[in-house]
Formats: sequence, structure tokens, C-alpha cells
Amino acid sequence: MLSFANDYAEGAHEKILQKLIDTNRESLPGYGSDKYCESAKNRIREACQCAEAEIYFLAGGTQTNQVVIDTLLADYEGVIAAKTGHISVHEAGAIEYTGHKVLELPQKEGKLLAEEVESYLAGFYGDVTHEHMVFPGMVYITHPTEYGTLYTKRELQEISGVCARYNIPLYLDGARLGYGLAGERIDVTLPDLAAYCDAFYIGGTKVGALCGEAVVFTRNAPRYFMTRVKQHGALLAKGRLLGIQFDTLFTDNLYLENGRNAVRMANMLRKVFADKGYSFYLETPTNQIFIVLENEQLERLGNEVLFDIWEKYDESHTVVRFATSWATSEQDVAALAALL
Amino acid sequence: MLSFANDYAEGAHEKILQKLIDTNRESLPGYGSDKYCESAKNRIREACQCAEAEIYFLAGGTQTNQVVIDTLLADYEGVIAAKTGHISVHEAGAIEYTGHKVLELPQKEGKLLAEEVESYLAGFYGDVTHEHMVFPGMVYITHPTEYGTLYTKRELQEISGVCARYNIPLYLDGARLGYGLAGERIDVTLPDLAAYCDAFYIGGTKVGALCGEAVVFTRNAPRYFMTRVKQHGALLAKGRLLGIQFDTLFTDNLYLENGRNAVRMANMLRKVFADKGYSFYLETPTNQIFIVLENEQLERLGNEVLFDIWEKYDESHTVVRFATSWATSEQDVAALAALL
Amino acid sequence: MLSFANDYAEGAHEKILQKLIDTNRESLPGYGSDKYCESAKNRIREACQCAEAEIYFLAGGTQTNQVVIDTLLADYEGVIAAKTGHISVHEAGAIEYTGHKVLELPQKEGKLLAEEVESYLAGFYGDVTHEHMVFPGMVYITHPTEYGTLYTKRELQEISGVCARYNIPLYLDGARLGYGLAGERIDVTLPDLAAYCDAFYIGGTKVGALCGEAVVFTRNAPRYFMTRVKQHGALLAKGRLLGIQFDTLFTDNLYLENGRNAVRMANMLRKVFADKGYSFYLETPTNQIFIVLENEQLERLGNEVLFDIWEKYDESHTVVRFATSWATSEQDVAALAALL
Amino acid sequence: MLSFANDYAEGAHEKILQKLIDTNRESLPGYGSDKYCESAKNRIREACQCAEAEIYFLAGGTQTNQVVIDTLLADYEGVIAAKTGHISVHEAGAIEYTGHKVLELPQKEGKLLAEEVESYLAGFYGDVTHEHMVFPGMVYITHPTEYGTLYTKRELQEISGVCARYNIPLYLDGARLGYGLAGERIDVTLPDLAAYCDAFYIGGTKVGALCGEAVVFTRNAPRYFMTRVKQHGALLAKGRLLGIQFDTLFTDNLYLENGRNAVRMANMLRKVFADKGYSFYLETPTNQIFIVLENEQLERLGNEVLFDIWEKYDESHTVVRFATSWATSEQDVAALAALL
Repeated sequence: MLSFANDYAEGAHEKILQKLIDTNRESLPGYGSDKYCESAKNRIREACQCAEAEIYFLAGGTQTNQVVIDTLLADYEGVIAAKTGHISVHEAGAIEYTGHKVLELPQKEGKLLAEEVESYLAGFYGDVTHEHMVFPGMVYITHPTEYGTLYTKRELQEISGVCARYNIPLYLDGARLGYGLAGERIDVTLPDLAAYCDAFYIGGTKVGALCGEAVVFTRNAPRYFMTRVKQHGALLAKGRLLGIQFDTLFTDNLYLENGRNAVRMANMLRKVFADKGYSFYLETPTNQIFIVLENEQLERLGNEVLFDIWEKYDESHTVVRFATSWATSEQDVAALAALL
Repeated sequence: MLSFANDYAEGAHEKILQKLIDTNRESLPGYGSDKYCESAKNRIREACQCAEAEIYFLAGGTQTNQVVIDTLLADYEGVIAAKTGHISVHEAGAIEYTGHKVLELPQKEGKLLAEEVESYLAGFYGDVTHEHMVFPGMVYITHPTEYGTLYTKRELQEISGVCARYNIPLYLDGARLGYGLAGERIDVTLPDLAAYCDAFYIGGTKVGALCGEAVVFTRNAPRYFMTRVKQHGALLAKGRLLGIQFDTLFTDNLYLENGRNAVRMANMLRKVFADKGYSFYLETPTNQIFIVLENEQLERLGNEVLFDIWEKYDESHTVVRFATSWATSEQDVAALAALL
Repeated sequence: MLSFANDYAEGAHEKILQKLIDTNRESLPGYGSDKYCESAKNRIREACQCAEAEIYFLAGGTQTNQVVIDTLLADYEGVIAAKTGHISVHEAGAIEYTGHKVLELPQKEGKLLAEEVESYLAGFYGDVTHEHMVFPGMVYITHPTEYGTLYTKRELQEISGVCARYNIPLYLDGARLGYGLAGERIDVTLPDLAAYCDAFYIGGTKVGALCGEAVVFTRNAPRYFMTRVKQHGALLAKGRLLGIQFDTLFTDNLYLENGRNAVRMANMLRKVFADKGYSFYLETPTNQIFIVLENEQLERLGNEVLFDIWEKYDESHTVVRFATSWATSEQDVAALAALL
Repeated sequence: MLSFANDYAEGAHEKILQKLIDTNRESLPGYGSDKYCESAKNRIREACQCAEAEIYFLAGGTQTNQVVIDTLLADYEGVIAAKTGHISVHEAGAIEYTGHKVLELPQKEGKLLAEEVESYLAGFYGDVTHEHMVFPGMVYITHPTEYGTLYTKRELQEISGVCARYNIPLYLDGARLGYGLAGERIDVTLPDLAAYCDAFYIGGTKVGALCGEAVVFTRNAPRYFMTRVKQHGALLAKGRLLGIQFDTLFTDNLYLENGRNAVRMANMLRKVFADKGYSFYLETPTNQIFIVLENEQLERLGNEVLFDIWEKYDESHTVVRFATSWATSEQDVAALAALL
């Protein structure tokens, strides 16, 4: 069945598979100390224009959020996030599992607003009872957000400024980062992220890898980070699996190419939806398209194509999500267009 | 450099890579619900002759131990393990991180003895203050052990009996299981493990996979295990990566073949060591060989081949470990022999 | 200085001190197994008309919430609470510290509404992705609430019904319970609480004890609860300290008397505020009174009497809280009245 | 029945009760910010000759160990302790509950040896795989130990020296400290403890208080310690309860007097045992006496006096413990003597 359900339905970009084959019989040291991890780190540092960045590879997104947030926070601190943030909703309490509260703030189209963050922090320190409360120890944002939206450079700068004033790190979840670096009017680049964030991760799983996320600590990593990764059960013996993939993704711009394909396909699909008079739930510049379907349409279409049911709109309408990916082809879009 | 350092230095068996290529563009559901996971589970159930087994795939060994032990224990319980057990020593406190004490018992050649376990349990319940202590809630063993030794069927049966009498589960860490199922006089089979253990895992990472371990709950899995896996940050979006690998490992006996190669190479190497008069630290039937080297030998050899320094033997000798694997060839053994 | 800041500013009711003196040199067993604990439990069972209740004594409120919630929840579950609930705001993340998310719902005057709870639960189980989310494993309410309000019997019954339908326990935090059992038109009694709640605690610290809360499990307590209490660092060696206090509080209705005094003084004070034209922030039947003060009034009054600054009302007004207690006298009220 | 079972069977020294009565109706601020806490801290600073010490009061011993160890350790660190240490055995896993491994070392008469600690630390850092293991982050000792023995000043100095060389804190559990400061040939004083330890606690519960332990951080306390205490559920609203008790214990040498009484009674009892030819399990200078009883003696005596069964000695003998306390009188000793 035709699938626009998500961006992790296929395996990996063929260049990655080829590299796994080419290097397969090389005997390499374990736990991320091999030359491919090293090379991948150098390429990422260069792409971020951040020579001093410390980089680590982890297997998945929830794992990455859990390990990074737990190691950046003091035990008495929590993490500020949008109420719709992935860590707030869809990670089965992985953050709380490590002892930290997710301090949920209101959001707009999936984005935290700098003034909301500032107001929360000011309110916290202005409250004489704040030593009885969870200290806000970092800010978590997603880019692209769960709603496929993007922060502008200005917005990022403002949130980063608030964090700096309160001396807490800004951490950006880039599970779908490739799809946020790839549009026509892209405002925020990897070097921007390195400049504004204390830590962020470059998502591999959803942008053409078999698995894997690259965590970039732009200033310095938590002490004994590898030990902490292992303590969380997250250290792969064959670290090469992640290093080889990211080395490939950051060779010849493959990561950006993967992103561009998805956004190009999404734009093509947007035009189809618009031309056919479908109603957009919100405007998004990335690989996720949110459409308000009549419930009969929903049922009919659901028999022929996979997509994600997002939320109820009203009694007779539902918001659904169509996602393109690095693997979506023009034929896929045409096939979907034919069904609409 | 020639490497006998460990059994995870190469990539994956080529059949696995081929299967990843063959299935790469198939659009599959996520989180382990795809058909390859299903097929792999069926093949493992069959290999274990345990139709009712519930099977889950995780990415690595420490992660598997952490998730399984944490979900099988009540919060007030700890896990009994040998003082030399992997969870006791080399997992960076991943078990304690989830709130559980590792109750360390003496061992013999890496093995827990049934009488030690029974005596500990009897002592615990005989102590009137035991409600102020950590309840022993399960028994953890490794097979092969960290010393490359194996439990006999009799030993396994006895430990299993003790567990049954105290109504606590027996969990077996099979990180190197393939190398324990493959010798000439193999006593313990997969169906034996399914019969005697409440849970065990079949190690993939060290037996020819890129990553991945298959957890087998022989009676029933902890409730909402998938949610618990996610809560631990251990759920891969592309569950196919694990399913495809285990589906391949359990097709045409590849898993056993991988094990057999390693043991055959180890036996060849054992003969070389014996013929040349090297001193064995202990006898092992699996892929790990422990040799007592004079320190000068150690230094000289260390310049030409990678092996693992195990522990100091005395002032002038050191115990070292040579490991073969699914990837070791006769040429490798011959090359090492030439250096000895 | 005159204090209406809170209800824990004095020591203990003198009858409690007297009982501590009378029993001081008795040699008693430890950890809550003494005869005073036993007697106190029996008196509480009787007051609750709940013969099968299991009762435990803990030292403080946050501790009680932490231990009870952690032991009633499965590891993958969180606790539903009002956004203004004590565990949501003022317990320094003690719940998250034990690995559980506080699932915050909107509230009305500090109260959770049954329909909000039901809607949340229905939404959760209706969401096909719910196994990626935190399972709602219990409901937490406070009575009196942080706003001094009380649930009606009807409201309690409705929430209890929702919990029963979803098979999750209802837990009531009675830190100030004495002040909620003592008004003129009291609707909810101890037997009602025992009927509608699976667990609740009878607050001692704020109702005339030196320290101590009595947890009542109306059906059955979590297994090995004493061990769990110790594991949380919450088991007092001299359990008698808590048993003697609750034995006294539940002799000759002292607990209710303490509550009645506070409510009588609060009503007297309410009349003063009303007569002098002060503006009430909300109506409350218990020992807490919320008044909207002009900021100049606030400053002037703040020099002569202690009260609690609650929250900003608008640019020129502030909500403040005056609390009476078991120890408040008519002279105290008169002295405050003279300042208004 | 005559009781020599432990040192927490009675209430509190009468001077403490009197002080609670005298201060009962004073309206005081909560959470340890009252003037009695302040006064108690000053008196303790003076007794320790440590003007810069930061002091906090907690309710019980396991709680104190849990909070102090958890806050002094980094998340990836464990605590070195004797295999017989209280945290290793009798705290229901309260340390592991907070995520930290107890690294158990061999002991002699309950004491850790400096050379064992040094050897463990040297071995750890000498192990090339140590980043896969739990970092030893502090040393925990008890004084008096669980066996009633005491460290000499020299031994303390040596352990302290090892800790300093490895830059990890030394923490001393003084649950029974009063009984270790009170003998005739006392070698280690409070100022010694302040000089050699980074943190220690002065036990109140077992030395004449209703409850309470005073934690002394001799250099500086963990950041936001009060918030951390609350997060652990350990912050009492009526902090006065602890402050008043310690203020009294450190007025007119009451703490030392309580200790002296117990040791004087123990010495009297030791003479009785010796004169009657009883066999001592080990020599102790504090309030605990360990005797090897024939099993028939054990049974007969057990009908008339409470004591603690320690461990099996051989088939026909058992080690038992007799404890005196601040509350033991000469009549008690005489009564016991009459039974021997």
C-alpha cells in the first residue's frame, strides 16, 4: 500500500548500505572509538562550522533525549518544553524515568515562544517558595516541530538569549532536522544551530539512516559522557554502525540531499492538495503536511494509502498528516494525487 | 593488525547485509511490528521449541539486561548475580541506575553455584530482619560466562529448581550464546534454555549481527513491555533493523554456523597454544581462551596482535584473553600461530 | 509577630506532648510495631468505619505522597493531578524523582472535575499511539485543596466512579484533612473517604502534631509496604513517635476538635474581612482565606502580621492567604481585626 | 521485659521533652529556618571546632545516608563501603534506589582498611576498561561500626588521606556517634571528624532524641541541598522538631552525657559477662557487646530479656548482641546480671 504515514518506513539510503558492505570485514575498535566515527565527527564539526564541538552517536531519538537531558540537568532540575513537545507526550515518560520533570509550557504551532520561557523563568525566581519547586534547568525545543513548523533564526536567537540570561542550556531535538535545513527559504542553518544551541542532535533515523542520531555539544559535553551513555544502556558495542552511517550522510551532502528530496516531494504534494481544494490545518515548510479531511474522505482514502491520524477537528472532520521522506519518489506523489 | 581482541570487531555476516539490501525499499510499519520481526520471532520460537514464548528485539546487551531485569523485578527487589557477572562489573551501574541492587555471590570459573544461591535465599528468609533488606527477586547468569565457561544441563536444572522453589525467575544473559551452543560436546541447547529459564536473550551483536539481541520470555513477558522498552529509551523506530537480522540468523542455521566457526577456530588455536607449551588459565569450551603470559611475552606479542588483558596473575605474569568469532578465518589462526 | 502565615507554625497540641511524656520510658519495639501504633490504627479504622483498612504512619506530606504514589503505580504509569496540585507544584519534583510523570489536568478552584478526568482517560485509550505514552495509573486529589476548597460528596463519588471504570486507584491527599471535616455544612466524612478512595492520608503535621501523616489503604496496601517505606528512606526507627501522636489525635475526637477550632477562627475572621469590605478571591469553607489586597495595604499589613503572598492579581492588587489553625485563638483574630 | 535489644527502645531524654514543651506555642518559620535550628547549628559548629561547617537536620539514618550519598555523588558514581556497612545490608536498597551502586569491600571487625580502599581505587583507574564501570565517587564508613568497633585517629587519617589523593569525599555515618565519643580511651573527637571527613552525621535517634540526625558538611554542602532534601521527601515542615532536639543535645554536653551513660553501663555489663566466663565474639569499646552463647543459653535467656540475635557461630553456638543506651540504668544491668 502507498505510504505517507511517516519518514521511517524504508531502510536506509543505498549509499549507507554500500558503505556498510565496503567496510564490513575491517576489524575496528568498539564503542565509538573507530576511525569512521572519528571521520563522521570531523565532517559534522565542519558542517556546523564548530571546531570545538564534541559529538556522540546514539541509536534513537527518545534515547538521545533521555541521555542528553538527564546528563545536562542537575538532579533537582527539570526541562522546559512545549506541551506538544515529543518528550512531553510521546516518549512514554522516558524523561521522568530518569527523575526529571518536564515543565510544560503553552506553544504556538508546536513552537515555544521566547517570551513564554522568559516569563516562566522570571516567575520561578520571583516566587519566594521556589526552592520547594523543580528548578528549570534547560530548554528543549524541536526543529522541525511535531507540527512540521520551523523556528526562524530570530526566534531561535531570542530563546537562546533567554537561556543565556538565566544560564541554562538550550537543547534542540533535530529528529527531522534534515527536513528543516532543506527548503527554499531556509533561514536556519547548521552553523546557526551550533551558534544558538548548547546541544542539539542531528536525526539520522528519519532522514535516511537505519538508525542513529548525532548529538552535538557545541561547548562541552557532560563529563564521562560515554560512561553515562552506557549507564543508560545506550552504548553500542559496534559503534561503527553509527559512525559509518553518519560519515556517509555527511559526505557529498547526502544528509541535505535526503532532506531536499522530502521537501521537494512535499511541495509537489502541497500543490496537489491546494489545487484540489483540500483544506490545510496549518502551513508548514517541511516534509509534514497537515490536512483537514471530511470523515468520509478519511475513510475512503484510508483504504488506499497510509497516513497518520493526527486529531479530531470537529464532529465531521479530522486532521491527518501526510509525510514525505528521503525515500519518496515522484511516482509516489503522482499515485497519491490520483487518489485524491 | 591481527585481532583476537574480541568478537565484535567486524561488521555483520554477509547474509545479513544482503537481506538488508533486498528488503531496503519495502515500506514497513515501525517499532517492531513488521513482518520480518514476526518471522524472526516464529523462527526463534521454533528453534527453542517453545510455541508460547514472547520475543522482543533490543539493540545491545547492557540495554537488554537493564530493561529485562528492571521489568521483571518488583521495585523492592534486587538481582542475584555472580561477583564476576557482566551486570556486576562492566555495565557502568546500569542495573543500579534503574533502582535495583545487584546481590553479588561468589562464583567458580564465572558460574553461580546452585547451592550458593539456595543458601543465600534460605539465609535471607531465615533472617528476621529481612524486611529491612533488598529482596532477592531473580537470578542472573551468563552462558557462556565472562570466563568462556558453560553451565552443564545439570547445573542449569539445579539453579532453575532453586528459583522455582523460591518462586523467582531465572534469567540468562546469552550475549555470546552462539558460542555456547556450538561445541562438540554441547550439553545445553536452545530448548533446554527455554525449559529452564523464565527469560534469556540470544546475543546477536557478538555473533554476527550489526547490533541486536533477542529476548525470549518463555512464560510471559512483563505487561506493556513495549512501553517499558520505550520508557528506557530502547525502542528503535526502525524495528526492521533487528527483525531482519534475526530472521536471517535463524534461517538455515546461520546463528549456529557463526558459533561453530568461532569454536572451531578457537579449538585450532588451543592446540597451537598447547603444542607450544603455553599455560592455560582455565579450560574453556567456547570462543574465549585465557592464557597466562610472561610479561615480556605480553609486551612482545602485544606489538603484533590485539588481545585482551584480563588480569594480573603474579608479579611476572598476566592473564590475557584471545577471542575468536564468526569472522575468524584459518588464516587468522595461522598468522597468530606464526607469532607465538 | 502575629502569624496567619500557615497552619504549622506552632508545636503540637498539648495532649500529644503529655502523651509523649507519659510513655517516654516505656521500652517499645521499633519501626511501627509498637502498641501505640496498633492502638492508633484501630482508632482510625473505627473513625473511618473501615475494619479492613491497612494503615501506616509516615513523617511528612511530600514523603507520604512520594511513597504512596510510587508504590501504587506500575513503573510505566503516571498520576493524574490538578495543575495546581501540591505534587504538581510544590514538592520539588518528588514524584518525578521516583520515575513517574504527573499528568496535569485543568482545575477549578483547585479541584479536578470528574468529566476532565474521564475525558483524559477516554482520550488516552482512544489514541492508537497510547503505548508510546505514559499510562494514567491513578488519580490524585487534595481535600481540602490548595485553595481551601472542598469536594462535595457528589463530586468525590463521580471521580471515584471514573476511577473504578478505568480500574485505577483514587488517592486523596489530606494534608489539611482536619480542616475539611470540621465546618458547619460538612458533606464529606471520614467514612465517605474510606468508601470512595483506595488510599488517602490523614494529615497530622498541619492539624496539631509535631510531625506525621496516617496513610489509609482502604482495600489493601502495596506488598511489602514497610520495605518500600525504608527503601525511600522514610522508615522511622522510633515509630512510636507517630503512633503515640495519632493515638492521641484519635482519642476523644481531638483531631476533629483541632479542625473545628481552626474553622471557627477562620469564620470569625471571614466576618471581619467581609464587614470591613475586603474582597475575597474565592469562597472557602476551611481554614484558608484568600483576600485580594491593594498593594499598599499589602505592604502596610505585611509589617505587622505574617500571611502568605499567593499570586499577583493585577498591577495594583495581590492575592494573599490568611490561615488559621488548631492553635489560633480568639485573641489572635481580634488582634488581626484591629490591624485591618 | 528487660530490654538490651537496641538503643532506640525508649522515647527521648527528658531535657528534650521539656524543651519541646517550653517552646511549644512559639510561632516559628518552617522547613528548618527557625531560631532553634540556627542555635543548634552554632552549637554543633562550636563542638566540631569548624566554623565554616554547613549543617542540616534530617529525620532518620537511612534517610540521611540516602540524601547525603545521592547528593554528593555524580550520577555515574557509586559509594565504597564495607560489605557489612549499614547501607550495604540493612537499608532495603535505599542507595541503589537513587541510582548508585554500593561498591562493597572486605572489612575487618566492621572497619574498612585504608589499604583496601587505596588498592580498589588504584585498581579501578589502572583498569583500561574503567569507563565501562561504576566510578568510585566517595567512601562511606560507620563510626562506631555495626560491630561496635571504632576507627583510631590514625586509621581515619589514612582513609582520609586516600580519599584526598583520589579527590573523593569521605562520609562518616555516626548513627551511634555519641557512643563512640564517650569511652575512657577515646581517640577520635568531633573536631577530628570535622578535620578528616567531608561530611558526617551526628546520630540523634539512637542517642536520646525522638528522631533526627545532624548532617555536617565540613567544607560545603551540595548546592540547593534543601531542595534536594524535599525532592527525596525528607523535608519536615516543622523543622523546629529537629532543631530543638539538637539544640538541647548540644547544650551542657547532653549528647556526650548520653553517650557516657551507655558506655559506662556497657562496661559494667562487660565485667559481668567476663566474670561469669562468657565468651566475647569481639572486643568493643562502645555500647554494643557481642557474646557467643550456647544455643540452650540463648533459648533460656531469650525468655527473660530482649537482645539481638546477630549470626550463627557454629552448630551449637550463636552470636548475640546486647546494647546499652542513654536510657540504661544500673538497675537494668543488675537485673540482667542476675539472669546470667
